[in-house]
Amino acid sequence: MPSSVSIIGATGDLGFGLALRLAKAGVPVVIGSRDGGRAAEAAERAAAQVPGADVRGLANPEAAAASDLVVLSVPFASQAPTLRSLREALAPGTVLLDVTVPLAAAVGGRPTRVLSVWQGSAAQQAQELVPEGVTVVSGLHTVAARHLSDLDHALDEDTLIAGDDRAAKARVAELVGRIPGLRPIDAGRLEMARITEQLTALTIGINIRHKATAGLKVTGLPNGSAWG
Amino acid sequence: MPSSVSIIGATGDLGFGLALRLAKAGVPVVIGSRDGGRAAEAAERAAAQVPGADVRGLANPEAAAASDLVVLSVPFASQAPTLRSLREALAPGTVLLDVTVPLAAAVGGRPTRVLSVWQGSAAQQAQELVPEGVTVVSGLHTVAARHLSDLDHALDEDTLIAGDDRAAKARVAELVGRIPGLRPIDAGRLEMARITEQLTALTIGINIRHKATAGLKVTGLPNGSAWG
Repeated sequence: MPSSVSIIGATGDLGFGLALRLAKAGVPVVIGSRDGGRAAEAAERAAAQVPGADVRGLANPEAAAASDLVVLSVPFASQAPTLRSLREALAPGTVLLDVTVPLAAAVGGRPTRVLSVWQGSAAQQAQELVPEGVTVVSGLHTVAARHLSDLDHALDEDTLIAGDDRAAKARVAELVGRIPGLRPIDAGRLEMARITEQLTALTIGINIRHKATAGLKVTGLPNGSAWG
Repeated sequence: MPSSVSIIGATGDLGFGLALRLAKAGVPVVIGSRDGGRAAEAAERAAAQVPGADVRGLANPEAAAASDLVVLSVPFASQAPTLRSLREALAPGTVLLDVTVPLAAAVGGRPTRVLSVWQGSAAQQAQELVPEGVTVVSGLHTVAARHLSDLDHALDEDTLIAGDDRAAKARVAELVGRIPGLRPIDAGRLEMARITEQLTALTIGINIRHKATAGLKVTGLPNGSAWG
């Protein structure tokens, strides 16, 4: 039985879709929300969609403390305040998968543009905000919430994972790889999140222009070597 | 018979690979180089690889004046000087496909990192440097020179095209789409080159890590709607 994964912001579209997919893959999931009641309600909704799923809902701090792999899935404007509110809850040794994207929409701009983050990327900002001993990994920027939450949709795409700690990155890759049709690709060090986060803005633009729900795939990799 | 395409910097790996592919697709190609002799020599090499090809070599200014679709394929450090040297040669109405990437390697940094360009991207810098009436389109950042120049390699990937002028962008898409296995995707306005240019650094990193020759594909597009 894999250990549990907590998803902070799992009442949002992407977080909830991820919760569904992981629950369906047999991973125990803790749904976190600012409001414990909403978290519990979302957990019930997830359990109704995935019979036999091990899903529970907790307020964000309790959720963050409940797993040693925590996904942060909140809008950019909430990233820093959320991480500050979790400083006591995130235990040393925790791996934090940050899926935040600094879309310009956070300040009333377009979702096809990104803000420049002083640290270089939202993930690098996250690494600065987490307590010592917590390792940030970045990923899941091009996987559409709409596709994740539609369990009848057969995924067939890649997700780029960036991080400085090989073991933490491999752990996230192992988790993501449990979702059928989603292939984790090692995109390098955490600083590469400067590029991978922007791909959300790119795919949003493609979606608008093509009335599509786009994702990305890396071609030309030797078979079986997707994880470097 | 399609009109000719001139490739500035076509003695370089990417430019030469593109020349080969376009020549093979039946497009008349003008190979440009700083040195007219080297251009002629490269044209001979290309013709030897593609029997019946219409390829000739000219010094860059003559090459730039010879077609109304010009590809600029030079290292970032040469982009601005090259464009300045072509100010008289580029006629109003010319479409310039800029494939420049501001890799940090231009100033001795890593090829997996990019420089910040004041205008936002190399393509936007190009738009500032070309004479009035010349329209810049950006593309071909994730297609490996190695794959283009190996005519036995079956391409199967996408290329993201950005530009402000719909007609110019469509022309570039039509040209790129002549190469079998290479699908042009409309990535939006020229400012999106801020994102698409960085994908070269991303794929170079993936290549190093995976000993691969990576490319990109956009998933989830409705059939036949790749060009928005």
